[in-house]
Amino acid sequence: MKNKESIDVIRHSCAHVLAAAIQSLYPQARFGVGPVIENGFYYDIEIPGSAISQADLPTIEKAMKSLIKKGVKFEQVEISLQEAIDFFAQNDQPYKVELLKELQNRGTTRLEDSAEPYRADQPVSLYKTGTFTDLCRGPHVSSTKEITPFKLTNVAGAYWRGDEKNPMLTRIYGVCFSNKDELAEHLRLLEEAKRRDHRKIGKELDLFFFDDLVGKGLPIWLPNGQVMKTEIEKLAEEFEYRYGYDRITTPHLAKKELYEASGHIPYYQDDMYPPMEMDDGTYYLKAMNCPHHHLVYNSKPRSYRDLPIRLAEYGTVYRNELSGTLAGLLRVRMLSMNDAHIYCRKDQIQDELKKVIELNLEYFKLFGLQKYWFRFSKWSAGHTEKYVNEPANWEYTQQVMKEILDDLGVNYIEVEDEAAFYGPKIDVQFKSVIGREETMSTIQLDFAAKTRFDLKYTDNKGDDNNEVYVIHRAPLSTHERFMAFLIEHYAGNFPVWLSPIQISLLPVGSDHHDYVAAMAAEFKTAGLRTRPDYSNETIGNKIRKTSSLKIPYTLVIGDKEINSDKLQVRLRGEKELLEITKADFITRVKEEIEHRKS
Amino acid sequence: MKNKESIDVIRHSCAHVLAAAIQSLYPQARFGVGPVIENGFYYDIEIPGSAISQADLPTIEKAMKSLIKKGVKFEQVEISLQEAIDFFAQNDQPYKVELLKELQNRGTTRLEDSAEPYRADQPVSLYKTGTFTDLCRGPHVSSTKEITPFKLTNVAGAYWRGDEKNPMLTRIYGVCFSNKDELAEHLRLLEEAKRRDHRKIGKELDLFFFDDLVGKGLPIWLPNGQVMKTEIEKLAEEFEYRYGYDRITTPHLAKKELYEASGHIPYYQDDMYPPMEMDDGTYYLKAMNCPHHHLVYNSKPRSYRDLPIRLAEYGTVYRNELSGTLAGLLRVRMLSMNDAHIYCRKDQIQDELKKVIELNLEYFKLFGLQKYWFRFSKWSAGHTEKYVNEPANWEYTQQVMKEILDDLGVNYIEVEDEAAFYGPKIDVQFKSVIGREETMSTIQLDFAAKTRFDLKYTDNKGDDNNEVYVIHRAPLSTHERFMAFLIEHYAGNFPVWLSPIQISLLPVGSDHHDYVAAMAAEFKTAGLRTRPDYSNETIGNKIRKTSSLKIPYTLVIGDKEINSDKLQVRLRGEKELLEITKADFITRVKEEIEHRKS
Repeated sequence: MKNKESIDVIRHSCAHVLAAAIQSLYPQARFGVGPVIENGFYYDIEIPGSAISQADLPTIEKAMKSLIKKGVKFEQVEISLQEAIDFFAQNDQPYKVELLKELQNRGTTRLEDSAEPYRADQPVSLYKTGTFTDLCRGPHVSSTKEITPFKLTNVAGAYWRGDEKNPMLTRIYGVCFSNKDELAEHLRLLEEAKRRDHRKIGKELDLFFFDDLVGKGLPIWLPNGQVMKTEIEKLAEEFEYRYGYDRITTPHLAKKELYEASGHIPYYQDDMYPPMEMDDGTYYLKAMNCPHHHLVYNSKPRSYRDLPIRLAEYGTVYRNELSGTLAGLLRVRMLSMNDAHIYCRKDQIQDELKKVIELNLEYFKLFGLQKYWFRFSKWSAGHTEKYVNEPANWEYTQQVMKEILDDLGVNYIEVEDEAAFYGPKIDVQFKSVIGREETMSTIQLDFAAKTRFDLKYTDNKGDDNNEVYVIHRAPLSTHERFMAFLIEHYAGNFPVWLSPIQISLLPVGSDHHDYVAAMAAEFKTAGLRTRPDYSNETIGNKIRKTSSLKIPYTLVIGDKEINSDKLQVRLRGEKELLEITKADFITRVKEEIEHRKS
Repeated sequence: MKNKESIDVIRHSCAHVLAAAIQSLYPQARFGVGPVIENGFYYDIEIPGSAISQADLPTIEKAMKSLIKKGVKFEQVEISLQEAIDFFAQNDQPYKVELLKELQNRGTTRLEDSAEPYRADQPVSLYKTGTFTDLCRGPHVSSTKEITPFKLTNVAGAYWRGDEKNPMLTRIYGVCFSNKDELAEHLRLLEEAKRRDHRKIGKELDLFFFDDLVGKGLPIWLPNGQVMKTEIEKLAEEFEYRYGYDRITTPHLAKKELYEASGHIPYYQDDMYPPMEMDDGTYYLKAMNCPHHHLVYNSKPRSYRDLPIRLAEYGTVYRNELSGTLAGLLRVRMLSMNDAHIYCRKDQIQDELKKVIELNLEYFKLFGLQKYWFRFSKWSAGHTEKYVNEPANWEYTQQVMKEILDDLGVNYIEVEDEAAFYGPKIDVQFKSVIGREETMSTIQLDFAAKTRFDLKYTDNKGDDNNEVYVIHRAPLSTHERFMAFLIEHYAGNFPVWLSPIQISLLPVGSDHHDYVAAMAAEFKTAGLRTRPDYSNETIGNKIRKTSSLKIPYTLVIGDKEINSDKLQVRLRGEKELLEITKADFITRVKEEIEHRKS
């Protein structure tokens, strides 16, 4: 059994083994449901008189392994629905009874209705694994011996059938893989994900925090986080300067009339913040930068010579996400992004798209992103109702996009019928260090804006030409997501140029404070970020603190160091000290920063 | 007659002379009112069958001068109210009749009620100047010969008594000064103000614009304006890096609860944008950065060693100004500012205030501001209801402020009873190039925040200490006002470092485009901002365009220039060309930028 279906059968069978083990340990257990999920399974269980916690998982795993070793058979039994109800009622399994009654009344146990409902004359299927019997349609493996390596990972509370009016059951999660290596790799990634969690590291390194008085989904950037934010924005400014972008700033608000023109009202209204009534009309916080940028394009007549015009903004947009869905930096209510819109003629699309992709590749190289691929989303000629009806434009731009991807020799996949309604798009996908597939960047080509906003230019004959194409691009995702990515990607061990603190200065005693202060001032003048530690802690504690702050360079300063010609530099994560003169050290660090060495 | 009262009598008399001249030129004229205003006067007039425009002012001035030359007497006549009504009715002066009837019914002709209303048995006062008779209490000069130099400046429409339901009258404005030099200086400043108007120059140089779809008071920054904005912010970042500030970013929103804690609700609520109801509470756009900064201060325990903490932000705040009051960049609804709050111990106030003032002085020097002085606002021990009741703190901090101002040897004035309610303040006043007194910067010391937000630190004995003083400062005003100031101050002739475009590149013909493009690329790599002009215009027109864009350096590139070893550089506003090698030119401009030469 090698394909996805087979492993899911094993995972489902493993859930039964979990339930059987639970029943052997807690005979009073009442069972809910135990479905397959990504990488594994869970089972919802009620255990009257007992509370299962993380600490109980090893015992349960042991019981499961014992069942697996025994090679217990999975046996299917078909009985009538009434017999099944009687059986589970006798065994004090009220949740199974409830499911069977649903099956009787609604023709299905699923929350949504079924296309092929259960008929009263049909039998129901049970599966027996030793003494444990479950209501289940299968399929299953034939014996517990076929269960592949697994691990119970987590315990959580879950309302029966997801409804908070129902009792809270205990949900036990497990993962299960085809072989030990896959399981080990998955567990390693889970540990990595915990270790690299941006909320955890964000707190440890004083990067950002949330405050209930400010509200959910609104991160506050502390000095250390702000340093990183500034460095990233400086990087974007440099890159965009080289690539010929013009920077602008647009207000964070606009009148209702703008969003009616753009179509955000009514189509996108639910995602926007509530309107504000002012003395001269209704205002909204912006949910996207494009409408403002189109107004900038239209603020003066444009000639064919002026195009392409590349308008970039460190723009901030506002999305009215439900408070329950907000999570760290990954889902926020105020998003900043290094956004840009490129306005070009039809004959410039190819060049401009190519440059955008090249810009992306430069970023990926800088941040050491290797496992990425492109996802090229096209329209479907059969679904014209979903798309701007300009077949010639679709053919032309898709052809252009494909040629560029081929020319660049990058990995890409093509997907039909997944374009934006206004044009084809290229998403950049990558696999994060914890194995999660993420979209880093989206490049979209827009045919609709030119009509909605009457974008035009004067062509070389002096005539109005409405063929203005708009490329939307935000290569560094939103600022918030990108910071979460960076934290996770580097596990907080940022390259020197990104490190909020680059050099840790640790005076051995208070006699060395003045010398350290002078040194800090010298480094500061050279543009290096230091953290002198004047606390009363022992030097050992100071070094441990430095290490927890993941500072790239550490200098311990005592009598010996003051009287030496050279510095003894501790490098983050290395045991060997670097012996170097102060001047050479400053030059070295400055060079690392200038070239953004990773 | 030398004091303000005397010049106002002359100005008022000049208004009568204006009315007399109008009557001689337009016998059908009906007169409204003609009061004294700053620097001069106006008169509201209705001229049935004629429309007076700016072009008519010289003729009217000539008639006025002729009356002045004749030495016509100002004669007061007192008659009964009924006689006065009959007189003005006979002379077809309905507005004067209306005023007299107001006097009869309400006891005053003023819009507000009078403390000493007119009594029916009192006479009313008329003034005669030749054949012109006005309802007027005086006083006046005795003869038109005493009228000092004047000039009619403007014609505008004005509703009778300021009510749009009334007829629109013609308002003629004039200025009048004690002597010719004062008048000439005033007229020069008026011309300068027109020439330097930030809205006019902002448009000419493509710095910013407004769009009705975005809304009033919400400037959109175009690429040229954005360059200046970025340069200013870079300057602020550099200065604050040197002065030991930490940068943060706080969200533009917060929950109602924060503004209740800060006291903005209810005290400042009218100036704030309307609330937005979200699924987890009520949110407001922020009107000030301080509450957010206080939360950052409180986000972790602070030790006496950590203080002072200087939190700086390029912060954006939102003020709900009435749409009718918005004007260019001077009054907007979304304000950005280089804001900061310094949290310090009592014994650090002196040092911190001093450094803030020094930072201000550095800025002023850089921008060539010479005519500034400090305005030191103190509390009043007699008005304790207006102030935080901490007399010892008032005495201490006022003493500290005074000592600092004395030590620095700067010009300052002291004003009693004008402090903020939470502490004394220092405003920096200056006289702009068009003679207007403006506040550039405010430095406030805050005793109230520590109590409202429970700001504290652990002192050197390990105890909680609530004596945290907060200095609010924004040395470059709001970003929008500062940009308006810079535009006016330099009349658009910005120093090289601030110039959106530094070098204008003008190919003589299309044969020279490639050479110019290569040159532009070379300058760009050196970090210099160019504008190559590839239009089909003549070289003469290209040079005129460059000049209107106030670009510091211009290079005309033809065959001769391409074959020469040296550049011939045109300097803004100078006739002499600068002969220099390209390498030296690049070095020169880069140095000017680096040192921010004015």
